[in-house]
Amino acid sequence: MTQTCTLTIAALYERVEAIFLKAGLNAFQAGALARVIVAGERDACKSHGIYRIEGALRTVRAGKVKPDAVPELLPTEGSAIVKVNARGGFANAAFEVGVPVLAERAGKLGLAALVINDCTHFSALWPEVEAVTGEGLAGLVMCPSYATVAPTGGNKPLLGTNPFAFGWPRENQPPYVFDFATSVAARGEIELHRRAGKQLPEGWAIDANGNPTTDPEAALAGAMLPFGGHKGSAIGTMIELLAGIMIGDLTSPEVLDYLGTTTLAPFHGELIIAMSPEAFSAGRPGNAFARAEVLFDAIVDQGARLPSQRRFLARAKSETDGITLTATEMEQLDRFLAHGLDAVG
Amino acid sequence: MTQTCTLTIAALYERVEAIFLKAGLNAFQAGALARVIVAGERDACKSHGIYRIEGALRTVRAGKVKPDAVPELLPTEGSAIVKVNARGGFANAAFEVGVPVLAERAGKLGLAALVINDCTHFSALWPEVEAVTGEGLAGLVMCPSYATVAPTGGNKPLLGTNPFAFGWPRENQPPYVFDFATSVAARGEIELHRRAGKQLPEGWAIDANGNPTTDPEAALAGAMLPFGGHKGSAIGTMIELLAGIMIGDLTSPEVLDYLGTTTLAPFHGELIIAMSPEAFSAGRPGNAFARAEVLFDAIVDQGARLPSQRRFLARAKSETDGITLTATEMEQLDRFLAHGLDAVG
Repeated sequence: MTQTCTLTIAALYERVEAIFLKAGLNAFQAGALARVIVAGERDACKSHGIYRIEGALRTVRAGKVKPDAVPELLPTEGSAIVKVNARGGFANAAFEVGVPVLAERAGKLGLAALVINDCTHFSALWPEVEAVTGEGLAGLVMCPSYATVAPTGGNKPLLGTNPFAFGWPRENQPPYVFDFATSVAARGEIELHRRAGKQLPEGWAIDANGNPTTDPEAALAGAMLPFGGHKGSAIGTMIELLAGIMIGDLTSPEVLDYLGTTTLAPFHGELIIAMSPEAFSAGRPGNAFARAEVLFDAIVDQGARLPSQRRFLARAKSETDGITLTATEMEQLDRFLAHGLDAVG
Repeated sequence: MTQTCTLTIAALYERVEAIFLKAGLNAFQAGALARVIVAGERDACKSHGIYRIEGALRTVRAGKVKPDAVPELLPTEGSAIVKVNARGGFANAAFEVGVPVLAERAGKLGLAALVINDCTHFSALWPEVEAVTGEGLAGLVMCPSYATVAPTGGNKPLLGTNPFAFGWPRENQPPYVFDFATSVAARGEIELHRRAGKQLPEGWAIDANGNPTTDPEAALAGAMLPFGGHKGSAIGTMIELLAGIMIGDLTSPEVLDYLGTTTLAPFHGELIIAMSPEAFSAGRPGNAFARAEVLFDAIVDQGARLPSQRRFLARAKSETDGITLTATEMEQLDRFLAHGLDAVG
């Protein structure tokens, strides 16, 4: 029988934050990373939970992220664009600096954007979407990744898995949130098939010669495919343009050139657009938040699901019962805490 | 042998505008509609060309659009949101009133939105995307439609085919533009299969009981499916939220309730977001427009296509050689011109 240990969310947070402080991250960086990692674990989103600590530490150890970076809010008064330079640190710390200013600006102008530059991007976008909806705003978040996806009709990796995320605030309950890769599958899913010795479903990937493949090894040496054919390919390209080129930061092929590997957290920028439903709907009939509930009810009433519901159920359970980790996971946390960066290869 | 007639773009424009004036549209409405219809015909996009005149006239005759509406620019100084009330006219006229103000606002603030309310939406979004890129801005355009698409996992029409369009300006050549339905196929494509007595491809639709079908009749009585599974379904839902509910205008199920048919042009709103690459990239290394060309070259060099290229080739040909219509098409134009609204049932 596997031993387990159950911690409160706050206790897990303290432990993860301590690991990052021990590894030399400053309070900005350690706190922001610990918050998103614990959020992943809390929501039973294991692929974005404590499993990610090692990758973050490896990226620090490889010198590809500045553990002591202090994000800098740039002067953009009078503009709908708020800019934060992460100064080589993690995106998460820069986001935390920017989001109150983004909310203030979107409240004032109805619509605003937050640009994060020169950051190492870490983990999922939904924690950031939820921070925007937490301000009563609708949010659209996107960023490039590494070149691992071929554009539809092409035969080589060029686009990233470029996540696209959106949130709408709801009263007295978690927001409507989606956050997905614009590739058919996440790269991690192909890796999991490889480890399990399983073939991939049709349509996920092409091999190094550009031919369709269901072999995970061949797929990893070739390219993944965009979701939804040419439409997903177009959205992936849009994300390179808006959240790479437009904000003056790296595109997915440039990220891969810079890092030389897909095993470290990627260095690029991020674009967050926040919209005030109150400002947009001002003077129009009906209450936007109440009308959205009618739409959500109509979706659920026909047996379809709203995205992220599994996460929210897990969150409610974690808030009541705490987070349960295996003995192996607890030992790994202890090892990270004891040895800092020396715990990773 | 079919007789044909070749007209210059300007000559076709005059003829189409005259049809709408004869049908009782004012100069705002007639000019704006003629411009998008001629743009469709010019780009060999026949499904958005003169074929659409009849639908527009039927919508006028049904009393579902105000032919003499004068769009009203609402006072939104100091906001990033520009609002135009179409006052029951076509979206196109309202868009033409709003786009210079949108461009000025986006130039000043870096980012701005144009909301069009109380409009009858007409035809494709790419002419509007191209008007935004024509101002040197990146543009994102979306709107609801009629409830004809079931959310993934559901069994009834709820979402619209909700088009999603994007454009990026390019120097000395047509912009990067995509414009697609967030359903697998457009409703017109299912109708074409029905008329041709052909089965649909798998995955396009479900029947009235929610079961997958390849029978076009059953599909039209049932629901279409979103592109890309749950991801496309989520994007379609986002469009209902942002370009329906957030802007205080009708959602796709509300549009269908209001019109009672999918054979007239739909009444709802539209959301256009414009971003200034110059403002977003200010102070960052590299020129955004030049960097985008590197990305486009990398797409094309591996044999993939940029969207809309077929349209742009047809446009160049039309600009040189004029637009060729069949004798039947010419007769139809003559009939519309002679009889106005009496030419439609």
